[in-house]
Amino acid sequence: MTPEALTPERILEATEEVLRRHGPAKATVVDVARVLGVSHGSVYRHFRTKAALREAVTERWLGRTEAALAKITADAGEPAPTKLEHWLTELFEAKRHKAGDDPELFATYTVLLGESSGVVERHLTELVGQVRQIIEQGSRDGVFTVGDPEAAAQAVFSATARFHDPGYAPDWRRPTIEAEFSAVSGLLMRGLRAP
Amino acid sequence: MTPEALTPERILEATEEVLRRHGPAKATVVDVARVLGVSHGSVYRHFRTKAALREAVTERWLGRTEAALAKITADAGEPAPTKLEHWLTELFEAKRHKAGDDPELFATYTVLLGESSGVVERHLTELVGQVRQIIEQGSRDGVFTVGDPEAAAQAVFSATARFHDPGYAPDWRRPTIEAEFSAVSGLLMRGLRAP
Repeated sequence: MTPEALTPERILEATEEVLRRHGPAKATVVDVARVLGVSHGSVYRHFRTKAALREAVTERWLGRTEAALAKITADAGEPAPTKLEHWLTELFEAKRHKAGDDPELFATYTVLLGESSGVVERHLTELVGQVRQIIEQGSRDGVFTVGDPEAAAQAVFSATARFHDPGYAPDWRRPTIEAEFSAVSGLLMRGLRAP
Repeated sequence: MTPEALTPERILEATEEVLRRHGPAKATVVDVARVLGVSHGSVYRHFRTKAALREAVTERWLGRTEAALAKITADAGEPAPTKLEHWLTELFEAKRHKAGDDPELFATYTVLLGESSGVVERHLTELVGQVRQIIEQGSRDGVFTVGDPEAAAQAVFSATARFHDPGYAPDWRRPTIEAEFSAVSGLLMRGLRAP
Protein backbone atom coordinates (compact mmCIF):
# COMPACT_ATOMS: atom_id res chain seq x y z
CA MET A 1 0.00 0.00 0.00
CA THR A 2 1.30 3.47 -0.86
CA PRO A 3 1.55 5.96 2.02
CA GLU A 4 -1.13 8.13 0.32
CA ALA A 5 -3.68 5.29 0.43
CA LEU A 6 -3.05 4.71 4.13
CA THR A 7 -6.01 6.37 5.87
CA PRO A 8 -6.84 6.19 9.60
CA GLU A 9 -9.92 4.15 8.68
CA ARG A 10 -7.83 1.54 6.82
CA ILE A 11 -5.48 1.29 9.81
CA LEU A 12 -8.40 0.80 12.20
CA GLU A 13 -9.91 -1.91 9.99
CA ALA A 14 -6.57 -3.72 9.95
CA THR A 15 -6.21 -3.27 13.72
CA GLU A 16 -9.59 -4.88 14.31
CA GLU A 17 -8.58 -7.76 12.04
CA VAL A 18 -5.28 -8.23 13.94
CA LEU A 19 -7.06 -8.06 17.32
CA ARG A 20 -9.57 -10.66 16.17
CA ARG A 21 -6.77 -12.96 15.00
CA HIS A 22 -4.17 -12.56 17.79
CA GLY A 23 -6.23 -11.35 20.77
CA PRO A 24 -5.58 -8.19 22.79
CA ALA A 25 -2.53 -9.54 24.65
CA LYS A 26 -0.52 -10.45 21.55
CA ALA A 27 -1.63 -7.94 18.88
CA THR A 28 1.15 -5.46 17.99
CA VAL A 29 1.53 -2.42 15.77
CA VAL A 30 4.01 -4.44 13.68
CA ASP A 31 1.22 -6.98 12.97
CA VAL A 32 -1.04 -4.15 11.84
CA ALA A 33 1.65 -2.71 9.57
CA ARG A 34 2.29 -6.18 8.08
CA VAL A 35 -1.41 -6.65 7.22
CA LEU A 36 -1.36 -3.29 5.44
CA GLY A 37 2.00 -3.88 3.73
CA VAL A 38 3.52 -0.71 5.22
CA SER A 39 6.23 0.06 7.77
CA HIS A 40 5.21 0.41 11.40
CA GLY A 41 6.50 4.00 11.16
CA SER A 42 3.67 4.73 8.69
CA VAL A 43 1.13 3.50 11.21
CA TYR A 44 2.70 5.61 13.97
CA ARG A 45 2.38 8.68 11.71
CA HIS A 46 -1.42 8.36 12.17
CA PHE A 47 -1.55 6.99 15.73
CA ARG A 48 1.31 8.15 17.90
CA THR A 49 1.25 5.25 20.36
CA LYS A 50 -0.05 1.71 20.56
CA ALA A 51 -2.41 2.88 23.33
CA ALA A 52 -3.79 5.64 21.06
CA LEU A 53 -4.43 3.08 18.32
CA ARG A 54 -6.22 0.74 20.71
CA GLU A 55 -8.32 3.58 22.04
CA ALA A 56 -9.25 4.70 18.53
CA VAL A 57 -10.33 1.21 17.45
CA THR A 58 -12.45 0.86 20.62
CA GLU A 59 -14.02 4.26 20.00
CA ARG A 60 -14.85 3.21 16.43
CA TRP A 61 -16.46 -0.01 17.68
CA LEU A 62 -18.65 1.83 20.19
CA GLY A 63 -19.28 4.61 17.68
CA ARG A 64 -21.12 2.25 15.32
CA THR A 65 -23.76 1.57 17.99
CA GLU A 66 -23.96 5.26 18.88
CA ALA A 67 -24.58 6.17 15.23
CA ALA A 68 -27.36 3.61 14.76
CA LEU A 69 -29.06 4.83 17.95
CA ALA A 70 -28.59 8.50 17.02
CA LYS A 71 -30.69 7.88 13.90
CA ILE A 72 -33.57 6.62 16.05
CA THR A 73 -33.13 9.55 18.46
CA ALA A 74 -33.27 12.11 15.64
CA ASP A 75 -36.39 10.70 13.94
CA ALA A 76 -38.91 13.53 14.27
CA GLY A 77 -41.84 11.35 13.19
CA GLU A 78 -41.80 8.81 16.04
CA PRO A 79 -43.59 9.63 19.34
CA ALA A 80 -41.32 9.55 22.40
CA PRO A 81 -42.72 6.44 24.15
CA THR A 82 -42.43 4.10 21.15
CA LYS A 83 -39.12 5.77 20.23
CA LEU A 84 -37.64 5.06 23.66
CA GLU A 85 -38.75 1.42 23.55
CA HIS A 86 -37.37 1.17 20.02
CA TRP A 87 -34.10 2.75 21.16
CA LEU A 88 -33.70 0.38 24.14
CA THR A 89 -34.53 -2.64 21.97
CA GLU A 90 -31.99 -1.53 19.36
CA LEU A 91 -29.29 -1.07 22.04
CA PHE A 92 -29.97 -4.54 23.43
CA GLU A 93 -29.97 -6.07 19.93
CA ALA A 94 -26.73 -4.33 18.97
CA LYS A 95 -24.90 -5.51 22.11
CA ARG A 96 -26.36 -8.98 21.85
CA HIS A 97 -25.29 -9.33 18.24
CA LYS A 98 -21.81 -8.12 18.98
CA ALA A 99 -21.55 -10.67 21.80
CA GLY A 100 -23.17 -13.58 19.94
CA ASP A 101 -21.94 -13.23 16.36
CA ASP A 102 -18.26 -12.80 17.10
CA PRO A 103 -17.52 -13.83 20.71
CA GLU A 104 -13.71 -13.56 20.30
CA LEU A 105 -13.92 -9.99 19.08
CA PHE A 106 -16.42 -9.17 21.84
CA ALA A 107 -14.09 -10.59 24.47
CA THR A 108 -11.25 -8.60 22.93
CA TYR A 109 -13.18 -5.36 23.10
CA THR A 110 -14.23 -6.14 26.68
CA VAL A 111 -10.51 -6.19 27.55
CA LEU A 112 -9.94 -2.94 25.63
CA LEU A 113 -12.88 -1.29 27.42
CA GLY A 114 -11.13 -2.06 30.72
CA GLU A 115 -8.05 -0.19 29.44
CA SER A 116 -9.81 2.91 28.13
CA SER A 117 -12.03 4.23 30.90
CA GLY A 118 -12.17 7.64 29.22
CA VAL A 119 -13.58 6.14 26.00
CA VAL A 120 -16.19 4.15 27.94
CA GLU A 121 -17.17 7.20 29.99
CA ARG A 122 -17.67 9.22 26.78
CA HIS A 123 -19.74 6.41 25.23
CA LEU A 124 -22.04 6.18 28.26
CA THR A 125 -22.44 9.97 28.36
CA GLU A 126 -23.39 9.93 24.66
CA LEU A 127 -25.99 7.19 25.17
CA VAL A 128 -27.54 8.75 28.29
CA GLY A 129 -27.63 12.06 26.37
CA GLN A 130 -29.67 10.40 23.61
CA VAL A 131 -32.13 8.95 26.15
CA ARG A 132 -32.41 12.41 27.68
CA GLN A 133 -33.30 13.92 24.29
CA ILE A 134 -36.08 11.36 23.82
CA ILE A 135 -37.42 12.02 27.33
CA GLU A 136 -37.32 15.78 26.70
CA GLN A 137 -39.29 15.25 23.48
CA GLY A 138 -41.87 13.25 25.45
CA SER A 139 -42.09 15.97 28.12
CA ARG A 140 -42.62 18.68 25.46
CA ASP A 141 -45.36 16.57 23.88
CA GLY A 142 -46.99 16.01 27.28
CA VAL A 143 -46.74 12.18 27.18
CA PHE A 144 -43.97 11.91 29.80
CA THR A 145 -44.17 13.58 33.19
CA VAL A 146 -40.59 13.92 34.35
CA GLY A 147 -39.18 16.54 36.69
CA ASP A 148 -35.50 16.10 35.89
CA PRO A 149 -34.87 14.65 32.39
CA GLU A 150 -31.15 14.06 33.03
CA ALA A 151 -31.82 12.06 36.21
CA ALA A 152 -34.63 10.17 34.48
CA ALA A 153 -32.36 9.33 31.53
CA GLN A 154 -29.67 7.99 33.86
CA ALA A 155 -32.29 6.01 35.76
CA VAL A 156 -33.62 4.41 32.54
CA PHE A 157 -30.10 3.59 31.41
CA SER A 158 -29.09 2.15 34.76
CA ALA A 159 -32.35 0.17 35.14
CA THR A 160 -31.71 -1.54 31.77
CA ALA A 161 -28.05 -2.39 32.53
CA ARG A 162 -28.84 -6.09 32.46
CA PHE A 163 -29.58 -5.66 28.75
CA HIS A 164 -26.55 -3.66 27.67
CA ASP A 165 -23.73 -4.00 30.22
CA PRO A 166 -21.18 -6.48 28.75
CA GLY A 167 -20.83 -8.02 32.22
CA TYR A 168 -24.27 -9.58 31.69
CA ALA A 169 -23.46 -10.98 28.21
CA PRO A 170 -23.71 -14.64 29.41
CA ASP A 171 -27.35 -13.98 30.43
CA TRP A 172 -28.27 -12.79 26.94
CA ARG A 173 -28.53 -16.34 25.65
CA ARG A 174 -31.21 -17.34 28.20
CA PRO A 175 -34.56 -18.20 26.62
CA THR A 176 -36.40 -15.90 29.07
CA ILE A 177 -34.28 -12.81 28.39
CA GLU A 178 -36.70 -11.24 25.86
CA ALA A 179 -39.61 -11.50 28.28
CA GLU A 180 -37.45 -10.01 31.04
CA PHE A 181 -36.47 -7.14 28.79
CA SER A 182 -40.13 -6.43 27.94
CA ALA A 183 -41.13 -6.48 31.62
CA VAL A 184 -38.40 -3.99 32.59
CA SER A 185 -38.94 -1.69 29.63
CA GLY A 186 -42.74 -1.80 30.11
CA LEU A 187 -42.42 -0.89 33.78
CA LEU A 188 -40.11 2.03 32.98
CA MET A 189 -42.46 3.34 30.28
CA ARG A 190 -45.33 3.27 32.77
CA GLY A 191 -43.15 5.14 35.25
CA LEU A 192 -42.30 7.86 32.73
CA ARG A 193 -45.93 8.24 31.63
CA ALA A 194 -47.42 8.31 35.12
CA PRO A 195 -49.55 11.39 35.90
CA MET B 1 -13.18 -28.07 72.14
CA THR B 2 -15.04 -31.27 72.98
CA PRO B 3 -16.82 -33.01 70.08
CA GLU B 4 -20.17 -32.31 71.81
CA ALA B 5 -19.60 -28.55 71.71
CA LEU B 6 -18.77 -28.63 67.99
CA THR B 7 -21.93 -27.37 66.27
CA PRO B 8 -22.31 -26.59 62.57
CA GLU B 9 -22.68 -22.91 63.50
CA ARG B 10 -19.33 -22.91 65.36
CA ILE B 11 -17.66 -24.56 62.36
CA LEU B 12 -19.14 -21.96 59.99
CA GLU B 13 -17.98 -19.09 62.21
CA ALA B 14 -14.47 -20.55 62.24
CA THR B 15 -14.61 -21.09 58.47
CA GLU B 16 -15.49 -17.43 57.90
CA GLU B 17 -12.61 -16.42 60.17
CA VAL B 18 -10.18 -18.66 58.25
CA LEU B 19 -11.44 -17.37 54.89
CA ARG B 20 -11.00 -13.79 56.07
CA ARG B 21 -7.46 -14.52 57.20
CA HIS B 22 -6.14 -16.75 54.41
CA GLY B 23 -8.37 -15.90 51.43
CA PRO B 24 -10.41 -18.39 49.40
CA ALA B 25 -7.45 -19.89 47.52
CA LYS B 26 -5.46 -20.92 50.63
CA ALA B 27 -8.10 -21.66 53.28
CA THR B 28 -8.26 -25.38 54.14
CA VAL B 29 -10.35 -27.62 56.36
CA VAL B 30 -7.22 -28.27 58.46
CA ASP B 31 -7.03 -24.51 59.18
CA VAL B 32 -10.65 -24.56 60.31
CA ALA B 33 -10.05 -27.56 62.57
CA ARG B 34 -6.96 -25.87 64.06
CA VAL B 35 -8.93 -22.71 64.94
CA LEU B 36 -11.50 -24.90 66.71
CA GLY B 37 -8.93 -27.12 68.41
CA VAL B 38 -10.43 -30.30 66.91
CA SER B 39 -9.30 -32.86 64.34
CA HIS B 40 -10.23 -32.29 60.71
CA GLY B 41 -12.19 -35.54 60.95
CA SER B 42 -14.55 -33.84 63.41
CA VAL B 43 -15.21 -31.07 60.90
CA TYR B 44 -15.85 -33.61 58.13
CA ARG B 45 -18.42 -35.30 60.38
CA HIS B 46 -20.59 -32.16 59.96
CA PHE B 47 -19.60 -31.15 56.42
CA ARG B 48 -18.69 -34.08 54.22
CA THR B 49 -16.48 -32.21 51.76
CA LYS B 50 -14.58 -28.95 51.58
CA ALA B 51 -16.97 -27.86 48.82
CA ALA B 52 -19.98 -28.54 51.09
CA LEU B 53 -18.39 -26.44 53.84
CA ARG B 54 -17.71 -23.56 51.47
CA GLU B 55 -21.25 -23.72 50.15
CA ALA B 56 -22.70 -23.73 53.66
CA VAL B 57 -20.68 -20.70 54.75
CA THR B 58 -21.75 -18.83 51.61
CA GLU B 59 -25.38 -19.73 52.24
CA ARG B 60 -25.08 -18.46 55.80
CA TRP B 61 -23.60 -15.17 54.58
CA LEU B 62 -26.40 -14.63 52.07
CA GLY B 63 -28.97 -15.88 54.59
CA ARG B 64 -28.28 -12.98 56.96
CA THR B 65 -29.42 -10.48 54.31
CA GLU B 66 -32.42 -12.67 53.42
CA ALA B 67 -33.52 -12.77 57.08
CA ALA B 68 -33.27 -8.99 57.54
CA LEU B 69 -35.31 -8.44 54.38
CA ALA B 70 -37.86 -11.11 55.29
CA LYS B 71 -38.69 -9.10 58.42
CA ILE B 72 -39.54 -6.07 56.29
CA THR B 73 -41.54 -8.24 53.87
CA ALA B 74 -43.60 -9.75 56.69
CA ASP B 75 -44.46 -6.44 58.40
CA ALA B 76 -48.26 -6.29 58.07
CA GLY B 77 -48.40 -2.64 59.17
CA GLU B 78 -46.41 -1.05 56.33
CA PRO B 79 -48.18 -0.17 53.04
CA ALA B 80 -46.70 -1.87 49.96
CA PRO B 81 -45.18 1.18 48.22
CA THR B 82 -43.17 2.41 51.21
CA LYS B 83 -42.38 -1.20 52.12
CA LEU B 84 -40.91 -1.89 48.70
CA GLU B 85 -38.78 1.27 48.81
CA HIS B 86 -37.71 0.34 52.33
CA TRP B 87 -36.88 -3.20 51.18
CA LEU B 88 -34.79 -2.01 48.20
CA THR B 89 -32.97 0.53 50.38
CA GLU B 90 -32.22 -2.14 52.96
CA LEU B 91 -30.88 -4.52 50.30
CA PHE B 92 -28.63 -1.80 48.88
CA GLU B 93 -27.43 -0.85 52.38
CA ALA B 94 -26.73 -4.46 53.34
CA LYS B 95 -24.67 -5.12 50.20
CA ARG B 96 -22.90 -1.80 50.46
CA HIS B 97 -21.94 -2.40 54.06
CA LYS B 98 -20.69 -5.88 53.30
CA ALA B 99 -18.56 -4.46 50.47
CA GLY B 100 -17.34 -1.38 52.34
CA ASP B 101 -16.82 -2.55 55.92
CA ASP B 102 -14.83 -5.68 55.17
CA PRO B 103 -13.57 -5.60 51.56
CA GLU B 104 -11.37 -8.72 51.94
CA LEU B 105 -14.27 -10.84 53.15
CA PHE B 106 -16.51 -9.39 50.42
CA ALA B 107 -13.92 -10.28 47.77
CA THR B 108 -13.66 -13.76 49.28
CA TYR B 109 -17.40 -14.30 49.11
CA THR B 110 -17.47 -12.98 45.56
CA VAL B 111 -15.09 -15.82 44.65
CA LEU B 112 -17.23 -18.34 46.57
CA LEU B 113 -20.38 -17.09 44.80
CA GLY B 114 -18.71 -17.94 41.50
CA GLU B 115 -18.18 -21.51 42.75
CA SER B 116 -21.71 -22.11 44.09
CA SER B 117 -24.13 -21.23 41.33
CA GLY B 118 -26.87 -23.26 43.03
CA VAL B 119 -26.59 -21.24 46.24
CA VAL B 120 -26.69 -17.96 44.33
CA GLU B 121 -29.68 -19.12 42.28
CA ARG B 122 -31.54 -20.00 45.47
CA HIS B 123 -30.67 -16.64 47.05
CA LEU B 124 -31.95 -14.71 44.02
CA THR B 125 -35.15 -16.78 43.93
CA GLU B 126 -35.72 -16.02 47.63
CA LEU B 127 -35.22 -12.28 47.14
CA VAL B 128 -37.42 -12.07 44.02
CA GLY B 129 -40.04 -14.08 45.94
CA GLN B 130 -40.05 -11.45 48.71
CA VAL B 131 -40.46 -8.62 46.18
CA ARG B 132 -43.33 -10.58 44.65
CA GLN B 133 -45.06 -10.84 48.04
CA ILE B 134 -44.82 -7.07 48.52
CA ILE B 135 -46.18 -6.45 45.01
CA GLU B 136 -49.04 -8.88 45.64
CA GLN B 137 -49.85 -7.04 48.88
CA GLY B 138 -49.94 -3.76 46.92
CA SER B 139 -52.19 -5.30 44.25
CA ARG B 140 -54.61 -6.62 46.89
CA ASP B 141 -54.69 -3.15 48.50
CA GLY B 142 -55.31 -1.51 45.12
CA VAL B 143 -52.18 0.68 45.21
CA PHE B 144 -50.23 -1.27 42.58
CA THR B 145 -51.65 -2.17 39.18
CA VAL B 146 -49.65 -5.15 38.01
CA GLY B 147 -50.82 -7.88 35.67
CA ASP B 148 -48.15 -10.49 36.46
CA PRO B 149 -46.61 -10.05 39.95
CA GLU B 150 -43.82 -12.58 39.30
CA ALA B 151 -42.71 -10.79 36.12
CA ALA B 152 -42.99 -7.41 37.86
CA ALA B 153 -40.91 -8.67 40.80
CA GLN B 154 -38.19 -9.91 38.47
CA ALA B 155 -38.30 -6.62 36.57
CA VAL B 156 -37.90 -4.59 39.80
CA PHE B 157 -35.04 -6.81 40.92
CA SER B 158 -33.28 -6.67 37.57
CA ALA B 159 -33.80 -2.90 37.20
CA THR B 160 -32.08 -2.31 40.55
CA ALA B 161 -29.12 -4.62 39.79
CA ARG B 162 -26.74 -1.67 39.85
CA PHE B 163 -27.52 -1.37 43.58
CA HIS B 164 -27.16 -4.99 44.63
CA ASP B 165 -25.13 -6.97 42.07
CA PRO B 166 -21.60 -7.37 43.56
CA GLY B 167 -20.18 -6.67 40.07
CA TYR B 168 -21.14 -3.02 40.61
CA ALA B 169 -19.55 -2.76 44.08
CA PRO B 170 -16.86 -0.28 42.89
CA ASP B 171 -19.68 2.15 41.88
CA TRP B 172 -21.18 2.11 45.38
CA ARG B 173 -18.56 4.54 46.65
CA ARG B 174 -19.50 7.25 44.14
CA PRO B 175 -20.94 10.40 45.72
CA THR B 176 -23.88 10.37 43.27
CA ILE B 177 -24.95 6.77 43.95
CA GLU B 178 -27.68 7.66 46.48
CA ALA B 179 -29.32 10.10 44.05
CA GLU B 180 -29.11 7.47 41.29
CA PHE B 181 -30.73 4.90 43.54
CA SER B 182 -33.57 7.30 44.41
CA ALA B 183 -34.17 8.10 40.73
CA VAL B 184 -34.38 4.41 39.75
CA SER B 185 -36.50 3.37 42.70
CA GLY B 186 -38.81 6.39 42.25
CA LEU B 187 -39.31 5.59 38.57
CA LEU B 188 -40.13 1.95 39.37
CA MET B 189 -42.63 2.94 42.09
CA ARG B 190 -44.37 5.23 39.61
CA GLY B 191 -44.48 2.37 37.12
CA LEU B 192 -46.05 -0.01 39.64
CA ARG B 193 -48.63 2.57 40.75
CA ALA B 194 -49.65 3.67 37.27
CA PRO B 195 -53.36 3.36 36.52
